Amino acid sequence: MKNFPISKSRRLRSTPYTDRIESQGVSSYTIYNHMLLPATFKSLEADYLHLKKFVQVWDVAAERQVEISGKDSAELVQLMTCRDLSKSKVGKCYYAPLIDHNGLLVNDPIINKLAEDKWWLSIADSDVIFFAKGLAAGKKFEVEINEPNVNILAIQGPLSDDLMAKLFGDQIRQLKFFNFNYYEFKGRKYFIARSGWSKQGGFEVYVEDNTAGQDLYDYLFEAGKEFNVRPGCPNLIERIEGALLSYGNDFDNRDNPLEANFDRFMNLDSEVNFLGKEKLRKIREIGINRKLMGVKIDHDTIDMYCEKTLIDDENNIVGYVRSAAYSPTFKKVIGIAMINKPYWDLKTQFKIDINEKIFVGTVCDLPFI
Amino acid sequence: MKNFPISKSRRLRSTPYTDRIESQGVSSYTIYNHMLLPATFKSLEADYLHLKKFVQVWDVAAERQVEISGKDSAELVQLMTCRDLSKSKVGKCYYAPLIDHNGLLVNDPIINKLAEDKWWLSIADSDVIFFAKGLAAGKKFEVEINEPNVNILAIQGPLSDDLMAKLFGDQIRQLKFFNFNYYEFKGRKYFIARSGWSKQGGFEVYVEDNTAGQDLYDYLFEAGKEFNVRPGCPNLIERIEGALLSYGNDFDNRDNPLEANFDRFMNLDSEVNFLGKEKLRKIREIGINRKLMGVKIDHDTIDMYCEKTLIDDENNIVGYVRSAAYSPTFKKVIGIAMINKPYWDLKTQFKIDINEKIFVGTVCDLPFI
Repeated sequence: MKNFPISKSRRLRSTPYTDRIESQGVSSYTIYNHMLLPATFKSLEADYLHLKKFVQVWDVAAERQVEISGKDSAELVQLMTCRDLSKSKVGKCYYAPLIDHNGLLVNDPIINKLAEDKWWLSIADSDVIFFAKGLAAGKKFEVEINEPNVNILAIQGPLSDDLMAKLFGDQIRQLKFFNFNYYEFKGRKYFIARSGWSKQGGFEVYVEDNTAGQDLYDYLFEAGKEFNVRPGCPNLIERIEGALLSYGNDFDNRDNPLEANFDRFMNLDSEVNFLGKEKLRKIREIGINRKLMGVKIDHDTIDMYCEKTLIDDENNIVGYVRSAAYSPTFKKVIGIAMINKPYWDLKTQFKIDINEKIFVGTVCDLPFI
Repeated sequence: MKNFPISKSRRLRSTPYTDRIESQGVSSYTIYNHMLLPATFKSLEADYLHLKKFVQVWDVAAERQVEISGKDSAELVQLMTCRDLSKSKVGKCYYAPLIDHNGLLVNDPIINKLAEDKWWLSIADSDVIFFAKGLAAGKKFEVEINEPNVNILAIQGPLSDDLMAKLFGDQIRQLKFFNFNYYEFKGRKYFIARSGWSKQGGFEVYVEDNTAGQDLYDYLFEAGKEFNVRPGCPNLIERIEGALLSYGNDFDNRDNPLEANFDRFMNLDSEVNFLGKEKLRKIREIGINRKLMGVKIDHDTIDMYCEKTLIDDENNIVGYVRSAAYSPTFKKVIGIAMINKPYWDLKTQFKIDINEKIFVGTVCDLPFI
């Protein structure tokens, strides 16, 4: 795939860490929530191998927060998601699909409950702030909605606990998955969650002060030498293996949450009130005709910049692969694909055109690992 | 400025014309509405000089449409903008700031009225679809809201009329500014508006069929040889000279429309009902403390990837420049800046740090030309 430079501007926002990652050798960017998000450093494969063995520090400031606070904030947040938050607790993180009036997906944030009347939606790549503002205005809710200056640093990889304990003390090892708390380092308090967009374990530091974040960034690299720390970023290979879905890539506002396998995060039979509830109940009753599954392709490379069609021997459409990369672990191209119902049997074979040559592949379950 | 490649993926959508512009030598991209938008071909300056003299064909598919139709569509569209649309007519285009509940800017689309109950909002870079969906759900409006498969080709430059007349006949020369109509070429009908993101004149073709668009693209280059046609894109220098504002660059959801000089497109004393009306009336009454103005800087280059501070001789903040480029016409860097009230006098001098050297500049009116 030919390389095209990104034309920088204020509209593609830099982060407080941009200067640092550029001096450390970031080699490509994507744009996420109108902001620079690093996509590779050494290479997709080298970054992948390192992430699975050591520890990385990620500039994921592009995971923006939508802060919703005030008297009607809980009602508004609940209205946007099909996950029942009525028993949610302060200090916990909730992965929650956001749904529109038609039962279609808007985003899949982690919802952090900071107080009974204060929430941070840590969003994927769509402007949830305008969905919330529109709804709140239409409903005449008493809420404040804004995007605070929060710029997340993620610490990811099997040695994350060791690195973080060195800075924040051993008590951080006790922090449970999808919980957050405040921890101190050099006289400053940091909001830290055990979460992150990899399956290798780690933390996300929600930094509210630019200088505090930049200092922490530098300390992490200083303290991390013994753990072979490197700068990194969400890794396409690793996230496909772990089936960490990406809004805009694997699903979007044309898909419903049942098609995207969000069943575990849906409470259609609950008492709570949310958009699209009746539509989703009807969809569940009728049943879906397509869903996200894994695919393995017998080839060693793939360029993805739009979805690619999968066909059977009679040229019927099996489905569309939406994200894919070569996996050094499987020694195949692996991908996430929207597969039509007649082809849901595991090991269904299909054909795919990659750079004008035909390759074969099979349908499989998600996640890969 | 060092070049960083863009990491392509389905999430950064390609357009029906991407293959063509890549084979024609697009040299950098920006991302706009989650889609590839070309930023340069030969160079910013070469593209600029050509645009002002000849004719260019632009892949501006990233100017996405939000289609709003149905019984309550006019009420919903009006609710989102401070421009009075009560006397709007089918076949006309309306440049209209979108405003949230707090009187802050959400986007500045061109609103095309297709029928009394069907509208296309041709949007700048923010997800207006979710603002509209949120509002409609909150208000229980009877509307359909979606993003149709429309991929705009713009024909821009002083020879646009000649090129378009060669394909669509001389009647297209009669199309008035900010009007649209349907025109036929080789048995197909195209929705064409006299509009575009340059001050050089031209048209935007709202293409609803990918093949029809690709064919038109090829015909334009074939027919355009005699006019020295080239592929192009919205040009940073030209659009700053003409003060064509860019959401996310020059203003955003932290700014109100009075600060962004949208006075001509605001009807705060009208009878119509829109979000933020009372807030905006209050802001008008109190008066604003900053507004967008032009700046000229005595230098020949500038890299913009975040706003840059302008200071006076006593280190007080004069304002922030948000977009800037070297203009071969003015032989200076020109820019669009948010200037604080004490410095609104024309020819106010300021200092600016560009790559760790101090340069001087002056405040001026917009547009430059």
